[in-house]
Amino acid sequence: MTATTRPLHLHPDRLFPSDPVQRDIARRLHAQVVGLPIISPHGHTDPAWFAGNAPFENPTELLLLPDHYVFRMLYSQGVDLDSLGIPRADGSRAPVDPRQAWRVFARHFALFRGTPSSTWLAQVFHDVFGLSVQLDAGTADYYYDHINAALQTPAFAPRALFERFNIELIATTESPLDDLAHHAAIIDSGWHGRVITAYRPDPVIDPEHEAFPTALQRFGELTGEDVHRWQGYLRAHRQRRAFFAAMGATSTDHGHPSARTADLPPAEAERLFDTVVAGKASAAEAELFRAQMLTEMAAMSVDDGLVMQLHPGCFRNHNRGLFQRFGRDKGADIPLRTEYVHALKPLLDRFGNHPDFRLILFTLDESTYARELAPLAGHYPALLLGPAWWFHDAPEGMWRFREQTLSSGGFYNTVGFNDDTRAFLSIPARHDVARRVDCAFLAKLVAEHRIEEDDAAEVAVDLAYHLPKRAYRL
Amino acid sequence: MTATTRPLHLHPDRLFPSDPVQRDIARRLHAQVVGLPIISPHGHTDPAWFAGNAPFENPTELLLLPDHYVFRMLYSQGVDLDSLGIPRADGSRAPVDPRQAWRVFARHFALFRGTPSSTWLAQVFHDVFGLSVQLDAGTADYYYDHINAALQTPAFAPRALFERFNIELIATTESPLDDLAHHAAIIDSGWHGRVITAYRPDPVIDPEHEAFPTALQRFGELTGEDVHRWQGYLRAHRQRRAFFAAMGATSTDHGHPSARTADLPPAEAERLFDTVVAGKASAAEAELFRAQMLTEMAAMSVDDGLVMQLHPGCFRNHNRGLFQRFGRDKGADIPLRTEYVHALKPLLDRFGNHPDFRLILFTLDESTYARELAPLAGHYPALLLGPAWWFHDAPEGMWRFREQTLSSGGFYNTVGFNDDTRAFLSIPARHDVARRVDCAFLAKLVAEHRIEEDDAAEVAVDLAYHLPKRAYRL
Amino acid sequence: MTATTRPLHLHPDRLFPSDPVQRDIARRLHAQVVGLPIISPHGHTDPAWFAGNAPFENPTELLLLPDHYVFRMLYSQGVDLDSLGIPRADGSRAPVDPRQAWRVFARHFALFRGTPSSTWLAQVFHDVFGLSVQLDAGTADYYYDHINAALQTPAFAPRALFERFNIELIATTESPLDDLAHHAAIIDSGWHGRVITAYRPDPVIDPEHEAFPTALQRFGELTGEDVHRWQGYLRAHRQRRAFFAAMGATSTDHGHPSARTADLPPAEAERLFDTVVAGKASAAEAELFRAQMLTEMAAMSVDDGLVMQLHPGCFRNHNRGLFQRFGRDKGADIPLRTEYVHALKPLLDRFGNHPDFRLILFTLDESTYARELAPLAGHYPALLLGPAWWFHDAPEGMWRFREQTLSSGGFYNTVGFNDDTRAFLSIPARHDVARRVDCAFLAKLVAEHRIEEDDAAEVAVDLAYHLPKRAYRL
Repeated sequence: MTATTRPLHLHPDRLFPSDPVQRDIARRLHAQVVGLPIISPHGHTDPAWFAGNAPFENPTELLLLPDHYVFRMLYSQGVDLDSLGIPRADGSRAPVDPRQAWRVFARHFALFRGTPSSTWLAQVFHDVFGLSVQLDAGTADYYYDHINAALQTPAFAPRALFERFNIELIATTESPLDDLAHHAAIIDSGWHGRVITAYRPDPVIDPEHEAFPTALQRFGELTGEDVHRWQGYLRAHRQRRAFFAAMGATSTDHGHPSARTADLPPAEAERLFDTVVAGKASAAEAELFRAQMLTEMAAMSVDDGLVMQLHPGCFRNHNRGLFQRFGRDKGADIPLRTEYVHALKPLLDRFGNHPDFRLILFTLDESTYARELAPLAGHYPALLLGPAWWFHDAPEGMWRFREQTLSSGGFYNTVGFNDDTRAFLSIPARHDVARRVDCAFLAKLVAEHRIEEDDAAEVAVDLAYHLPKRAYRL
Repeated sequence: MTATTRPLHLHPDRLFPSDPVQRDIARRLHAQVVGLPIISPHGHTDPAWFAGNAPFENPTELLLLPDHYVFRMLYSQGVDLDSLGIPRADGSRAPVDPRQAWRVFARHFALFRGTPSSTWLAQVFHDVFGLSVQLDAGTADYYYDHINAALQTPAFAPRALFERFNIELIATTESPLDDLAHHAAIIDSGWHGRVITAYRPDPVIDPEHEAFPTALQRFGELTGEDVHRWQGYLRAHRQRRAFFAAMGATSTDHGHPSARTADLPPAEAERLFDTVVAGKASAAEAELFRAQMLTEMAAMSVDDGLVMQLHPGCFRNHNRGLFQRFGRDKGADIPLRTEYVHALKPLLDRFGNHPDFRLILFTLDESTYARELAPLAGHYPALLLGPAWWFHDAPEGMWRFREQTLSSGGFYNTVGFNDDTRAFLSIPARHDVARRVDCAFLAKLVAEHRIEEDDAAEVAVDLAYHLPKRAYRL
Repeated sequence: MTATTRPLHLHPDRLFPSDPVQRDIARRLHAQVVGLPIISPHGHTDPAWFAGNAPFENPTELLLLPDHYVFRMLYSQGVDLDSLGIPRADGSRAPVDPRQAWRVFARHFALFRGTPSSTWLAQVFHDVFGLSVQLDAGTADYYYDHINAALQTPAFAPRALFERFNIELIATTESPLDDLAHHAAIIDSGWHGRVITAYRPDPVIDPEHEAFPTALQRFGELTGEDVHRWQGYLRAHRQRRAFFAAMGATSTDHGHPSARTADLPPAEAERLFDTVVAGKASAAEAELFRAQMLTEMAAMSVDDGLVMQLHPGCFRNHNRGLFQRFGRDKGADIPLRTEYVHALKPLLDRFGNHPDFRLILFTLDESTYARELAPLAGHYPALLLGPAWWFHDAPEGMWRFREQTLSSGGFYNTVGFNDDTRAFLSIPARHDVARRVDCAFLAKLVAEHRIEEDDAAEVAVDLAYHLPKRAYRL
């Protein structure tokens, strides 16, 4: 530590309005939700952590390398990914001491001022690790040593943290090709923590994924179905969905470039599938196939009760040079303008009024909140709105979500919060931010005499706890 | 009433900021406008009410069934429209006791928390009916009986309410095929209430409307013109517009899927009309015909002085299954992304600078407020902006409208408020909300020293009263 | 002056929140930046003013005629441009006494209530001219005489104002065909004021500009290159860029209808250029040529270090009739929906990761802030975000820019403020507004405990001073 060390506080009123009337209401509402267990129905933590319960490796591996919110910001300001030791596409890795990478991060920490990362990290540092000075170049080594030491203690093992975080349930996300061995191990271990999976079939549905042919091959081996024929392929999905459901899954998840759906006559769907399997699908045919598969997935959801989630509208791996050097998921995913009204009609024409069907819609295009999504969810019984997602899960984004969906959609066509993260240690902070923003939003409504405080308190509890459980059938 | 009865208040500061500086200014501004008469230049009340002055039937018929804001929210949460007794497409109706339907509504009233419907309904219940407990399952019958009894008294007859609501003028909306008998009856009755019509020719302009051929037939019979030929068709419009104007209309209204306009050479327009009349228009030709007709309507407006309104950008009757069972206008209209800059150019090239032409633009696509509409209206003398519309007439939507149109459009290229409703009893509440939001918005500008309070007061009065009268030539 | 004269104040807390907690923080932050010199790295002042240092002519010529924010609003409310004496396309001008034009302006001044023009003008009147009554019909002549008299004094000569305004550097914008004689004269004069140019090649790049063929001709004469062949054309650009850089330029500026870029194989680019030079380019080919030229300009930027600016998304001269009568730039430019993610990919594939390349992106389509621009700039090292621009540089627009770019882009992928104006006297007011809004925005973050006040103060200084200098390599 140096002479410039600055104290690290978490103010109890953080994210609340400074107006005393609103702040007092927000405090009272927050008191109703602060102790509620965490429901995390959509995310990307690694089930191996909870199966093996091995200690996390070091601060860099735990907090820096898996967090693309963090390293994309560093990269945008000229920090090469090699200087952080990010694994490369060819499996190699620059020979970087993790402490050295941590120092680079610490030196650039001012870049995060005002961003959600700085809010989440402050809470991780303060609440999880008990740190009371701020991270900067002068405290980098102190941080590294302090966190490193903590990670070797039993209190920082994955299961201990899960319990300390008051997580009632967490969902991970797996490919149909996953054997769910870690989930099985968790169940077999007798540990009471609920870690369930979600069925994410993109790799065996997207003909444009580079690994599609091999994934399909493996899909067939795993299921014993003739997955190169349409009916066998659909049966294989049904079989894996049933397996996932048996292992605890209550939902599927679909990350498509657009929200387009289709409802082709069976013979046409079969012909399209043949073209796809033959590796001859044009870009338009690939898009049509993904569209058709959303409707097929919906049909299966009606049968097996898995709640369907659609996360559309991202241009993945936009940075060609970086993709070549470092591969997928390196912070170069960019949201796209996304259309829902025409896109979803084929699927909704079939299942939009079905009492057993449920589709949770997400967007990265905020211009659709008030224009398309809230009007759709405020009408169709099958539709609910997922929370502000990814680039939009900052306080401002959450606030825009509420402001732009409330009038047509209300609170009760939304599903509460998703943390959607692989940054396990930030999960309490992320839920805390969401709860605080919802309480602040409700406090404004109360202060402006649009809702009574006891109703607002009920809404706050519903958003934090009951709505996600109901929406995801947990 | 049960033990859980909760009092119903309307707080005098509702919708005002809780910041004391802004709130005090908002109160003073609101005091200037609260007593102004209501100008309602665009809406969908039934002129038969004011012609016949018969008592309204019961709470369900009056407040629930005509309000698609209300039943779409109920439907989105699994309430079947039959359980409310909504009339079906075939004219039949589920045999539901209206009291029973009212109970369903009351039981689900928490769904509306924070929505504009809850604000409007609270004011209707409290101010119009003098209710002082909240609506919920326990008070449903009390409400039903109380409202029902009131409706049978002379004070709740349509004309009495019109006067009590301090309505200076209300415009209804009629098809060219309407004989305006109710408007004639109102005039003939000698009652001083001003109920005018507006010319809404969509049914005889949209080739894709299922009733277009029969509507056209009737249009010919009514006018004595050969409406199956282009010149006769245009003459028929001119004739009906003149009739509407003679009956008090000062405006026309056009609800198109897009804002597209066209200015075809006469021979081409005539050929297009022939194709339309022959029932052979493709979707693109239908769109082009509607586009051309907007420009034709503009040309007639230059001649007869009727103010033109354009309400584009809605996908009507999106829910196929519901449309088949219950027909049009059942809460399944969904806004669409809408483009104005290229779309309006043909019309504006002809009339955008004409001193006698006026076009009031509305949108359901808020992304166009700051990008397209305010820049257009802040330049073209013929253009004015209609207020936040339909899905956007909640306080948040009105606030966004002002925040996003002020800088390029100012206040004086807007037209004040439209309630645009068939929910007659909610009209005072809707205007009150609009006035309060405008006063709150102005109060913020005053508190941040961007406008002086006496100027703000003048703006508040202009927005509530003078601008709609000027814009609609009332 | 008449009996209705009202005092003109500039409140010291203008544009700060009225909440006392936030206001006090905003005041303290603003105290850190209020005295900083003005960096104006992008604008449209006339270098002749500073070269010749002749007095400005009269209030109308100085404040009204060059300000399309002002006369577009007047025009939208029926004020003919001839009544203001705006020069016509044919070079003629209505014989209007400038005092008469000023009276028209004064009479309509209420139209600007709440708009940024009213804020800027109030500060010009009060701070620059020492006026203490408000402008209206009654004070029009007093204003005219007062300002007119001041303009004849040495303190109001261009260089004196430049110094009084505490401008450290101002950039103008010139065509490659400009000889930069005024800039040379400024340098030769020994005056210490830094007035640099920026390379704006649109006239010799846009095949759809009506003057393109003659501009190209002149481009060849000026450079001695065979600019009708591809390699000669590119060499001519390199030569003029080098000349501009030698005269102080650090940036180029590109005002295209879209953000589209292309990276054609050399032979294809050459064929496309041949088509363009032959005057045979279709609209699609013209668009492709502009797209290709952005990538060519980026390649040159990598070599010569000029920072590239892209200002896309405007439909220029939308009003046909007005364009015919009055020519370009008469307030009829309208923003367009603009796409960046696909559009920029060809250019970014080549230079997005290049350490020597810098591209500053602007938009008139705010829906891209959070969806496209902040995610792009928060990832690519070459990209930075220009400030809220043109139609969006009002306080509300600046606030939306920060709220929608902060979470993915942070503060440090933005470049501080650009005034982008030819209204020289408003420059201090515009920078003051931007600094106040940034301080207010930061004050909210501090008050809600999301950033510490000392960090916020550093950010405020960076936004006002250091970031523009760093971004533009000044």
